[in-house]
Amino acid sequence: MFQAKATINIGIVGLGLIGGSLALDLQKQGHTIYGITHREESAVAAKKKKLAQVISTDLQILKNCSVIFLALPITKLLNPTTALINALPKNAVVSDVGSVKQPILEVWEKIHPKFIGSHPMAGTNQAGVDAGKHNLFLNKPWVVTPIDSTDNAALEVIKKISLSLGAKWIQTEPKLHDKAVGLISHLPVFISAALIHSTSREKEYSLLELAQNLASSGFKDTTRVGGGNPELGVAMAEANRSNLLAAIRAYKNSLDYLEQHIKEKDWTQLKNELETAKHTRDKFI
Amino acid sequence: MFQAKATINIGIVGLGLIGGSLALDLQKQGHTIYGITHREESAVAAKKKKLAQVISTDLQILKNCSVIFLALPITKLLNPTTALINALPKNAVVSDVGSVKQPILEVWEKIHPKFIGSHPMAGTNQAGVDAGKHNLFLNKPWVVTPIDSTDNAALEVIKKISLSLGAKWIQTEPKLHDKAVGLISHLPVFISAALIHSTSREKEYSLLELAQNLASSGFKDTTRVGGGNPELGVAMAEANRSNLLAAIRAYKNSLDYLEQHIKEKDWTQLKNELETAKHTRDKFI
Repeated sequence: MFQAKATINIGIVGLGLIGGSLALDLQKQGHTIYGITHREESAVAAKKKKLAQVISTDLQILKNCSVIFLALPITKLLNPTTALINALPKNAVVSDVGSVKQPILEVWEKIHPKFIGSHPMAGTNQAGVDAGKHNLFLNKPWVVTPIDSTDNAALEVIKKISLSLGAKWIQTEPKLHDKAVGLISHLPVFISAALIHSTSREKEYSLLELAQNLASSGFKDTTRVGGGNPELGVAMAEANRSNLLAAIRAYKNSLDYLEQHIKEKDWTQLKNELETAKHTRDKFI
Repeated sequence: MFQAKATINIGIVGLGLIGGSLALDLQKQGHTIYGITHREESAVAAKKKKLAQVISTDLQILKNCSVIFLALPITKLLNPTTALINALPKNAVVSDVGSVKQPILEVWEKIHPKFIGSHPMAGTNQAGVDAGKHNLFLNKPWVVTPIDSTDNAALEVIKKISLSLGAKWIQTEPKLHDKAVGLISHLPVFISAALIHSTSREKEYSLLELAQNLASSGFKDTTRVGGGNPELGVAMAEANRSNLLAAIRAYKNSLDYLEQHIKEKDWTQLKNELETAKHTRDKFI
């Protein structure tokens, strides 16, 4: 694992799962962390958990920082407050953690000269100041999406930090990133939510009750992401709408294929499709 | 946990995950297990694993048994060989483990007077003589689907055994069972397989490669059952075709709803739907 040598002042805006975990690991490396929470109550909880050496709701503490992570929800990244923008030192390297990159870069390339679009992919099921934990980024992809105007030195700073956390550094274009996460990260949320709905819209009470009693690990796994944070799901759909709609269209075609084979009792073809699925999944997992 | 008092001779036809696990637990309770494998090679492996006291490919050993479990794939349960039928003692209680019940009962109520339709729901991802393990059925549903012609004493025998394994005894109608598993067990396989296909049909190589690198726990969980055993998937579809097709229709309606909200940018309604999904899932899990 790469270890950053010099210790620096790092600001982290938002101390939820991603922000809190960044704070814990970077603090352990010897850096001084300036953590920002939105509410006073969260600041108290974050102090109890010792997420950072300095914790405040006051954005002014960021003036001490040479690197700042905006560990905020997508909606806040797309609509940053003036107070946040003004609190960012002009020389600081600023990065985010949002799961869409093109819309965020369109906003931030105009705001900050040393902004790096980041997407550390390390789970999103837990939230709040209690969610942060050590080694969250270990062996997880950390995607960055530099554009023409990106400051190369700033990119190197983020690269060093992400490698020091044990993350897998992946550099790609924002457009390609957003298409890919549309397929493998955002689409699953909606096909999984639809599965939950298709059972709950069942009107026959005895059937619904039985289904609830019989639901086993297969149902549990397939519905996990669909039963996740509703705000996050909406934010994904809103920020990555066209890629998500394209992914849903592709998905419906795939499902139509399978349905057609079942309708036509074409078991040979259905078996082929399921074999392809099995082999394909191995390449992803 | 209920413990069966008298030790008996129990035949188990098929020593895969379900059959092998039954054999291990029932042997531990003191019963004498007569295990049947299809191939000589599997018999050798099963003997090495000590899955049963008597292991053979010769169905004649079943003549010693008062209870026999047919731990066979659905297709073999729907098309039993004459050799199997003739090897079952007329007085023995016979049960199966198939994940559909109505078609199996239609076949078996004509073959054996003491047949009990069972579906112990204890996972299906592993297979073969190495898959069996202790306590597989602990706290898992064991569904039985008695019909008018069912022998009540035989039903009680299976109930005692299933409770002795720590399973949750659930008694229902075959038709209702098949509808419920169509929704919560068979449907997930196909919606999950379609997700794998929708990513793999992607023609842009760089996108496919990136998607494969970024696929995380959400994608992994949502695609698990779709990347499972193809033979089992086809057998489910074949044996539970009309319920599965109805479930797919219901599913497509649910997905259309979500897609519509995204198309119309109706984020309020989308959030409502995702909140409902979250709450509904809690009732199932």
